[in-house]
Amino acid sequence: MPIIDQTRCPVKTGSIYPEPYASMMKGRSSLRLGEAGGLTQYGVNLVMLEPGALSSLRHWHAQEDEFVMVTEGECTLIDNTGEHTMRPGDCAAFPAGDDNGHHFVNRTDKVAKFLVIGTKAPREVATYSDIDLRVEIDGGTARFTYRDGTDFTAPR
Amino acid sequence: MPIIDQTRCPVKTGSIYPEPYASMMKGRSSLRLGEAGGLTQYGVNLVMLEPGALSSLRHWHAQEDEFVMVTEGECTLIDNTGEHTMRPGDCAAFPAGDDNGHHFVNRTDKVAKFLVIGTKAPREVATYSDIDLRVEIDGGTARFTYRDGTDFTAPR
Repeated sequence: MPIIDQTRCPVKTGSIYPEPYASMMKGRSSLRLGEAGGLTQYGVNLVMLEPGALSSLRHWHAQEDEFVMVTEGECTLIDNTGEHTMRPGDCAAFPAGDDNGHHFVNRTDKVAKFLVIGTKAPREVATYSDIDLRVEIDGGTARFTYRDGTDFTAPR
Repeated sequence: MPIIDQTRCPVKTGSIYPEPYASMMKGRSSLRLGEAGGLTQYGVNLVMLEPGALSSLRHWHAQEDEFVMVTEGECTLIDNTGEHTMRPGDCAAFPAGDDNGHHFVNRTDKVAKFLVIGTKAPREVATYSDIDLRVEIDGGTARFTYRDGTDFTAPR
């Protein structure tokens, strides 16, 4: 059945980030809608942000196109050019390789939600714009490093 | 600027289908949001269906994952299993290679809209479930054939 039963879709919480960054992701959760529907070529997630929550660390992707549509509440997009308010129906696109680091913050007192699509490239590098961190993804395994490529161990 | 100005996004109407099928697509239009945002790995379109309009001929994709979220009004999904009503926030997924032919019909008296995502595979074959038609896409060029692979010229 192609229609996705969102009431049975597991709610994913937590973060794959190393500390101290994982703790900054409190209040964010998501439904893996694309995986629930059997898709493998791109991810489709419904991200839910409690008041004050961040979608991610500000980042950009080397290999993967990303697309966002706000579906509920109000999200503040923060990118290289500043802050931009987005409301339901508003869309934003982040082409692969464009170093415009971005994330979304819920600055309101109500839940905000957005749909996000991202290609599933076999290998990917994401760079975090505001800190000395990047991640290499290879076959589903994530390796966090400093920008010089050495393994991330603890904040320097 | 990653936020897409939907007021400046060209409204695409018409159809690449050969007649008599192109004429069946009246009342359908779309905004190419992904292309407007510079994405190349998958398409993201906001499809608008006037009352009575069809999203497409009922079809399935050999190579490309497809995902739909209804954003406004009510759409009736028709697939191999029957008819299913979908409302804003409802999602459906159609994995590549699954021969569950599908399309959406607006059976209401108000405009209905949905966001649709589809991978951009270099080569693709889509098969139309209810008629003797398929299409081969190669490098952006579409070739319509009968199911036996001969060129489509006119209804037999």
